[in-house]
Parts: sequence; C-alpha cells; structure tokens
Amino acid sequence: DKAKTEGGLKITSKDENFSAELGGRIHFDTYFFDKDKNYYDTILFDTELEEPVNTTDFRRVRLKMRGKLWKWEYELERDFASSGTGGLRTVYLGTKVFDGSLRIGNFKPSRSMNQLTSSNQITMMERSFASSAGIYDNRGRQQGIGWHTHWCCHTYGVTLFNLRNPGDPRNEGIGAATRFTWAPISNFDSTVHLGASFSYEDANEDTPPREALVEYAGRRGPEQLVALSPGGGEFFFGDFGDDEFYQGDPGGDVWILGLELAGAYGPFYAQSEYAFGIFSGDFYLSEFTFFEFFGAPPRFFCDPYTGCFIGDQDVRTWYIVGSWAITGQHKPYDEKNGVFRSIKPTPPESAFEITARYDTIENRDIPGMKVSNFVFGFNYYFNPKVRLMLNVTLGDDKFTGDQTKQLAIRMQGFW
Amino acid sequence: DKAKTEGGLKITSKDENFSAELGGRIHFDTYFFDKDKNYYDTILFDTELEEPVNTTDFRRVRLKMRGKLWKWEYELERDFASSGTGGLRTVYLGTKVFDGSLRIGNFKPSRSMNQLTSSNQITMMERSFASSAGIYDNRGRQQGIGWHTHWCCHTYGVTLFNLRNPGDPRNEGIGAATRFTWAPISNFDSTVHLGASFSYEDANEDTPPREALVEYAGRRGPEQLVALSPGGGEFFFGDFGDDEFYQGDPGGDVWILGLELAGAYGPFYAQSEYAFGIFSGDFYLSEFTFFEFFGAPPRFFCDPYTGCFIGDQDVRTWYIVGSWAITGQHKPYDEKNGVFRSIKPTPPESAFEITARYDTIENRDIPGMKVSNFVFGFNYYFNPKVRLMLNVTLGDDKFTGDQTKQLAIRMQGFW
Amino acid sequence: DKAKTEGGLKITSKDENFSAELGGRIHFDTYFFDKDKNYYDTILFDTELEEPVNTTDFRRVRLKMRGKLWKWEYELERDFASSGTGGLRTVYLGTKVFDGSLRIGNFKPSRSMNQLTSSNQITMMERSFASSAGIYDNRGRQQGIGWHTHWCCHTYGVTLFNLRNPGDPRNEGIGAATRFTWAPISNFDSTVHLGASFSYEDANEDTPPREALVEYAGRRGPEQLVALSPGGGEFFFGDFGDDEFYQGDPGGDVWILGLELAGAYGPFYAQSEYAFGIFSGDFYLSEFTFFEFFGAPPRFFCDPYTGCFIGDQDVRTWYIVGSWAITGQHKPYDEKNGVFRSIKPTPPESAFEITARYDTIENRDIPGMKVSNFVFGFNYYFNPKVRLMLNVTLGDDKFTGDQTKQLAIRMQGFW
Repeated sequence: DKAKTEGGLKITSKDENFSAELGGRIHFDTYFFDKDKNYYDTILFDTELEEPVNTTDFRRVRLKMRGKLWKWEYELERDFASSGTGGLRTVYLGTKVFDGSLRIGNFKPSRSMNQLTSSNQITMMERSFASSAGIYDNRGRQQGIGWHTHWCCHTYGVTLFNLRNPGDPRNEGIGAATRFTWAPISNFDSTVHLGASFSYEDANEDTPPREALVEYAGRRGPEQLVALSPGGGEFFFGDFGDDEFYQGDPGGDVWILGLELAGAYGPFYAQSEYAFGIFSGDFYLSEFTFFEFFGAPPRFFCDPYTGCFIGDQDVRTWYIVGSWAITGQHKPYDEKNGVFRSIKPTPPESAFEITARYDTIENRDIPGMKVSNFVFGFNYYFNPKVRLMLNVTLGDDKFTGDQTKQLAIRMQGFW
Repeated sequence: DKAKTEGGLKITSKDENFSAELGGRIHFDTYFFDKDKNYYDTILFDTELEEPVNTTDFRRVRLKMRGKLWKWEYELERDFASSGTGGLRTVYLGTKVFDGSLRIGNFKPSRSMNQLTSSNQITMMERSFASSAGIYDNRGRQQGIGWHTHWCCHTYGVTLFNLRNPGDPRNEGIGAATRFTWAPISNFDSTVHLGASFSYEDANEDTPPREALVEYAGRRGPEQLVALSPGGGEFFFGDFGDDEFYQGDPGGDVWILGLELAGAYGPFYAQSEYAFGIFSGDFYLSEFTFFEFFGAPPRFFCDPYTGCFIGDQDVRTWYIVGSWAITGQHKPYDEKNGVFRSIKPTPPESAFEITARYDTIENRDIPGMKVSNFVFGFNYYFNPKVRLMLNVTLGDDKFTGDQTKQLAIRMQGFW
Repeated sequence: DKAKTEGGLKITSKDENFSAELGGRIHFDTYFFDKDKNYYDTILFDTELEEPVNTTDFRRVRLKMRGKLWKWEYELERDFASSGTGGLRTVYLGTKVFDGSLRIGNFKPSRSMNQLTSSNQITMMERSFASSAGIYDNRGRQQGIGWHTHWCCHTYGVTLFNLRNPGDPRNEGIGAATRFTWAPISNFDSTVHLGASFSYEDANEDTPPREALVEYAGRRGPEQLVALSPGGGEFFFGDFGDDEFYQGDPGGDVWILGLELAGAYGPFYAQSEYAFGIFSGDFYLSEFTFFEFFGAPPRFFCDPYTGCFIGDQDVRTWYIVGSWAITGQHKPYDEKNGVFRSIKPTPPESAFEITARYDTIENRDIPGMKVSNFVFGFNYYFNPKVRLMLNVTLGDDKFTGDQTKQLAIRMQGFW
C-alpha cells in the first residue's frame, strides 16, 4: 500500500477500501496582561476573583487519527492540553447518505461560521463571541448525529444532539442546529459568502446550565458571564431571603439565530457574523449571588426578599474581522464547508498578514450588560503549517468597568 | 519497508525484525431507560441513589499501538473515554517462551471466556455477570506476568498478578488465574468449545475491596452490589453501636471457578458460562450501612449492637447467550485464544444477526440477593469493522425489587 | 514516500520536505521494600506518613510523535502513566537558527547531564539527586525557548523559561539555564567528558515553591524534603504563635551550579556530577510545621513564638555512577547532546552490565539535613530496545534516621 507524509503519517490501500492517517497540532501561547488597576483594586476586596497571570500555556496539543473502512470513515481526536474525557475533540463514525456525509459521535453542530473554522485556520488567536468563545460557551462540540452536504456554491448541514460534550455529565438535554450558506461569487481571487444558522437547545435532567460567557481580554484573562439559562436543576440552592440563593424553574431552552457575511478579494478579507438569541430564564438570585455570578451589583431593582429576577434574556453579539496579506496571498474559500481557510505561502516563501477584529456581546435584559473588545495583530507564516501569531486585545467590560488588556503570542504548527 | 492499511497504519520491515501498527476503536452509545417507578418512588426518600439518565456516551475511544522489536513485541492501548491512569488498557512487553507467549505488564488474566473476548467482538453490548461486568468487577485487567499457549484444539494460560489495574492505588494484593480450553469439534461450520478457569485473589496492604457488582439494567443504569470482600483495611470505619459502621478483619481472599460451554453451527451460536466463587468476609455493618451498600434493608437478623454480620459469601453466576445470523454467516472460532469472534460479512455484503442473553448472579449468604436480566437485540454489520448494535435489557433486581429496563444503541467501529 | 520501521512507524517524503514518526516506550516496574522498622515504629504515631508499599507500577507509558514540516520540526510526547496535562512531556516546535536548533514549547532546560540523558538510556532505574529526582524536583521540563548547538567535541545550550511544566498552575515565575560541555577525548573506545551548567529560577505570582526533594529508597519509597524556596505566596498560612504556621517573604530565587566529569573506556564507564545551589528563603515555620515538612524535629533553636527561621539554604549534591559491561560493549557518547547512551548489543547477541551508584545531598543550613543512598544492580539487554533492570537501593536519611531499602525490577522497551 502507499505511504505518504506531509508532516503526518498516511497510508492508503491500493484498492482504496482503506486509508489511515495520523496528524496533530501544537499551539503554544504566551500571555502578558496589562491589568486594569482601578478595577482590581476595587473588586478584589469583595470577591474571590483571580487576577490574570502572565504565563505560557499550551492552548492545544492534539493528535488526530482518521481513516476509511470501506464505505465508512472514522475520526478520533484528543487534546492533551485538556484533562480527562473533556479532552476528546472530534470523534465520529461517518458514511455517505443521500449525497451528503452522515456523522455519529462528537463534533461541531452546524452553526457559527467562526466555530466551524478549524483552530489551525482562524485569523485571530481566539474565536469571536459568536462562537463557543461566547454565546455557545462550552458547546462547541456536542454528541449526536449530523448530516452535511454541498452543491455548487452552497452548503447545508443539520445536527441533532444530546446537550453534552464528553467532559460534561450525562444528561437528557437535546438540541438541534442547522446552517445554510451561499457563495454568490467564488473564483480564484474573489469570494462573497452569505450564511444563516439556527440553533435550539432544550435542557433537561442533569443538563448543565447554558451560558454566554466571554474572556474579553483574551485567553486566560478575566471572564464575564453575559447570560445564563438554567440547566437540569443542579445549580439551585438556598431559600428566598437568604444571603445566597438561586431559585426558580430548572430547564428551559435557548435558541440562537446567526447570520454570516464574508468576503475576500485579492489579499483582503473580511468576515462578520451577527447572532441573536433568547436564553430562557425564570429565576431569582440574591444580590450577593448576582454579584458572584456577574462580577458587579445589579443595576436594576431587586426585591429585598425574593431577590433579583432574571427572565428570558435577549442576547446579541456581532463581530467584524479583517486581514490584509501584505505578501499578497489570497485567503482560500473552503466550498465544502462554507468557511475560509488561512492564507498559504508556497515554500520557501513565507507570508505576513495584519489582522483586526471588533467583537461585542450584550444581554438586553440585564441592564448595562455589554462587553466588547478590539483585537489587532499579525500572523507570520513560516510555511503553510507553521505560524507565529501576535494579538493585542483591548478588553472593555462595560458591566464591571474592567478594561484589562492583553498581549498574546502563539507559535502554532499542525501536520 | 512495507506499508499496509486495513483502516489503521502498519509498517513491516523487510527483514521482519520489526513491525509497528496503530489502530483504534470508537464505541458510541445512546441509552434510554424505562425506570421502574415503584422502585424509585420508594427508594429515593431514603438514599442518595441516582436515577438513570437517558444520554449519549462514548463507551470506548481507544488508540492502540503494537509492534515487534526483534524477538520481543509490545502493545500499548489507551482508552480516552476514561480519565487518568485508569485509561490504560492492554499495555505489555512480551516474547516467546517455551512455545507460548509471555507477557509482562497490564492485561486480562486467564479467566472468563466472555472477558477474554475483545469488546469489538462480543455479541451483546455489555459483557455478562461472569466477567468484569459482575463477579470480576473492576478486575478485568491486572498488572503482572502471564504465559499463554495453544496446540491443536487446546489453549492454556496462566497469570500471576498484583491486584491492581493502573487506575487503582498501589497495593500489595496478589492473585493468580489459569484457564484451559478444549474444542473437541472445530471445523469450517461447527465448533464445540469446553473450558475451565480458576482464579485466586488475596488482598493485602492498601488493596481496594473486591466486589461483585452488576449494572443489571445495562450500562449507566442502576448498580447492585452483590458481594464484597474487604480490601487492605482502608474502607473500615465507625464503632459498634454507631449508626454507621463497617468493621471486621481486613484482607481476605476471593477464589472463583469458571466453567465454559459454547458452540456454533452454521449461522447459529450459543455460549454459556457458570462461575462459582467464595468472597471471604468476616465483617459487621450497621443496618444503615448495609442499606447504603446493598440498596435495601437486610432480610436476616442483625444484632442491634454489633450489626449485620457478613461472613464468607458463596457467589454464583451463569449466563447463556445465543445468536442467529439471518444473513447466514458463521461465527468464527479463535483457536489461539479459545474464544469466538463476531460474524464477518464480505464487503460489499452486510450482515444481520439477532441476539439474546439470560444472565443471573446470586449471593447465597445474603438472603434474597439475586439479580438477573434478559437482553435481546440485533447487530447490523455494515462491514467487518463497522457495526450498529441494539439491545433491550430487562433488569430484575430481586433484592431491591427494581425492574428498570433499558434500550441501548451502539455505533461501533474499529481499525 | 518511503515507509520505515524499527519498531515504530516512520514515513519520509521523497523531496525530504516532510517526515513523521511515531514511537513510544513502556517502563514497567515492581518494587519490594525492606522497611526500616525502627523508623516507622517511631514516626507513625506522630505523622500521617505513608509506609512504602510493595507494588507493581507503570513508570512510563508514552507515545511520541515527531516530524518535519519543511524547515521546521515538531515533537509531541504524552506519558499515559501520568494524569491530566501533567502527562505532557517534550512538546515543541523547532527550527535551525545560527547553526543551532531553536525550540519553543516544553522541554528539558540545559542543565544536569543526568537529566538530559533519556530515561531509555540511563544506567540506573532512577536519576540521581542532581537531576529532577532531587535538586531540580518537578522541574525536569519547563515551558520556554531554548537554543542548542554542538561543534567538534563541544556542546552549548541555553534556555529561557517560564517556571512551569504543563501540570503546574499558570504563573509568572521565570528562569534561565545554560550548559557547556567538552569532550577532550572521544574515540571509538575511550571518552572523557567535562561539563558545567548554571541555572537561575525566580519565583513570582502563583509560582509553586521550588523544592529539593528526594526519594532516597527508590521510586515510590519514602520522601525527604531537603530544601524549600517559597513560591508566589500560596503556601503561606497561620500566624506567629499558632501551632501550625508558615510565614515570611514569598518569591525568591534559586540558583544552581553544576559540574560534570564522565568517561568510558572499553566496557567500563563512570560519571559524576556535583551541584551546588542556593535556595533563597526568609521564612518561619512552627516546630509542628517543620516536622510535617521535614519529617523530624529541628536540630536547631526555634523561638517559641516566631518559630523556626529558615533563610537562604546552601544545598550540595554529588553522585558517582559506574558500570561494567561484562559482555564487552562500550557505552557510546552522544556528541550532539554531550551525554552517554546505554550499551547496545548487536542482535541476536544480548548484553549484561553491572552497575553501582553513590548519591548524596545535603542542606547545610538545616543542621543534620543529609540524605544518601547506594544503589547497585544490573541491566540485561535482550536487544538494543528491550532491557531488564534490577536495582537494590540502600537508603540512608540521616535527618530522620530512616534506612529503608528497596529491590526494584524494571522491564523496559522503547521503539
């Protein structure tokens, strides 16, 4: 049989019934924070908030095995920068059904263009708030069954899933997501991409709460909880009138609509997503618990006895990201998945790209809950598989007033 | 050197001094429970019992590397569906000694036909109570040294081991197991298999307790502790007359005798094992602790002061499993290991098999302690390496009265 | 492309832009202790000290993937005998810079000849106190950037790092290490090696304490803390005059100078290192806490109110190890890294080597704090990749008086 390497191991059988390949990725980061002193001086007396720490960190250390078993295929990916079963990433068995691919296992539901772009291909070091780095927090991959197809300049995918990634507890929550994209223009130097997705998630017994949670000053920086929809009950505690309580109806659903607009022209590229969601709620928190959860006192009236009521939450987020490849490369469009890939120099040539993004999320039902950041930086591609990234993130948490900044550097390789 | 794939990666050197291969498996399950309402209504007031949860679950996500180093061979298997060092599966260095294979490391002791059958080859989704899913609970693999040989229609194996799998604490417990099988008939369409095994386990400092523990309504369903032999002391607590105590002599041994009878004829297959064991004991539990451990009050007299005495426990279990390959395939017999493999369609053909099993275990020294289940289902083989399984399990815990049922579905692939 | 195996999997592309290989190692140990009864009889009443347990243990179970991506290379190694992110071993991206190799990620800093020798190649089962098994406890690999070169008979390396291995908390500590070696004689049957290294480590926010800690009676035997330099504050507790307290200035630096002398002549080999370090301190412990930390009462005056003062600690360690290959093989010298490798029989021949080491460490600022051991044993090489090791360790903790002994056996294979 035929052996091949482009940095990984690959063997394909002569009769093409079988193939197998082993690849991986290393993303190694360094973070420096410019803490917002006013914020930390005020807040540290009241909370157990952790200050951000300048550090190195393995963001991703993964091995991935894929292969073909007659008409079926498998993929098994494990991230060693995460512990336990939570380190499982894309793991599925799949086959062709009705001109599309069917997958059974753990993978990304069909929603959010930025989420569906591989971490090896994203423009900035971290994904936007419209992905699992925000509105889909901790739900980037889910266990279930999905089907995906593409024709001409369209892609369509649908996923039915258990509200569980392998690191979560077993639970009865269920969800569905679907996404359609259209690239009205797609040729060698210009692409216009339009897309829409819809996601529905229904908590049930033992489902963890669904949150919109953002690290607005970059990875390992301060976090802001933006919205919370209760899970299957386990988080409830206390009694009305206690200093600390959280009470109400467990369960409830979250639905999110996402819209995508993106394009590339020569060395220029821009991508934007808008996501609008309802995080259902119907619960009461003591003021103390509100502060613990959201990092600042409520800016609305909380009944002294029943506490702060939080009902259905209208959550909105959008971002726009752009890049200019100074060395001239064009960002290729992946027609199969309806996402952009990163630029690709032809060795021995290297490539250099400058990048910027504005990202914002707000919860219209918690007054003042708005968090934004502005990120700018560059990517230097030593070759198509090895990249140095630098990002400066200017965080702006309007709810707590924190304006922590971060300088982040990543050495990234994949194979 | 020569590269080969049958879904995995394999390279063999020309001089045959070396070879290496990388394989894996994905078993992805979905469970639906039909809870026994009477049981849970009664019991949940008294205990912290968890109700079973409908969920998806990765049963196994493994990578396995094997190879040859001159006259030695190695195998290293890790299950990413388990956390920590407990995720180590078969890991050994081995060589040929006296016409047999010697292994040093962590592997399955020579006992229980069902246990020794690979999880890729078993007929039902879960193994029987005569394996590590019952009488050998948590002792499916142990660290030690083993030797195995086969000639004509016989196999013989012996294992000496530390009572430790890699997820257990370091301890001084030791054990031995041996198994002999004979296939008086073994040709292309008929096999008759006879076997016997004997296992001895002696707890010592820091050994965890040896238990017979069954999930009688399928994986992730309710558990019933059937028998308990104390380990190296660490579980002992309380004083006589306390509400909660567990006292007596630590250590003690467990010995188990197993008998096997199995056969295949054309598309039909049946297999049965009977295991008889003594779990030594000599301890006292308060009635409350008895209830906590065994899920129901004792049905024998417990002294109000010294509590419920549990001495040596006579544990018996047997099962019979059968299958009929409607598409006609014959279940092949693995003469090297003395076990059956699953049927194997020839692609592009697929195969369909219906299956059933009755399984029961009892502890004759705890009155009323008897647990059974009946499982039926089917296996659909898309090809020799990809299978869909469906099992309906009718659990029957005669000790607590619970009769929870389960519908379980598995997508399974290996390479 | 070209496939190759020497026990692992390797594929190299025809144009030599790419290569990839997958290897691994299994080290499986068995330990028997001859406990020092006097010691345990006295001490167990006072502390929660654990007695050593005879057991089997996987010392290392690793997979390692390496490869080439045009002018870059990667390495990713995971030890499955460790849990969580602490199981990451050498993980880096590297390239050639100025005639040397640059690495970014997690790897061994340039210090300690014994540390820099692969665990597959070391002479005794465990490394000496002059490595991460002692003065560099838990700091055998660190995250950072390093550069290494060699010319003629010299090697030079320098590393800048965050005081973090992937299992440690994120922290702001930084360090630097550098090493120079010279082999004035290096031919087919004689080598003389001289070396020197210098290491500096500066704790900062959230850095764990740096310790010199030794398992003087072999792996999994009793431990003795020899020196402690505070980390970033998290370990401090209590108030002066409490029964248990530990107070003083957090942070502080550790610097260590190491000298190396080694040689091989025919089948004989000897290696020695001397390391001298200052573990900065400026803290007070209650007598009780001193006992908890160091396992015996202080032999110096402790103020009844402010407790035992520990300032800067002058720590010294040295060892000498030797071996004689009775079957005649010469220990090869790795000129690229300035370390010795193990002897290598030519199959089908095997090899036999007898070994011995004296190892000692002392803290001159804690009176009586001196720990030594003497280890002797043999290595039997079935082939160049499979080895049986036996070590007898005679521990001698002069501070607590414990003289526990150990017999350890290892089956080791790598590929």
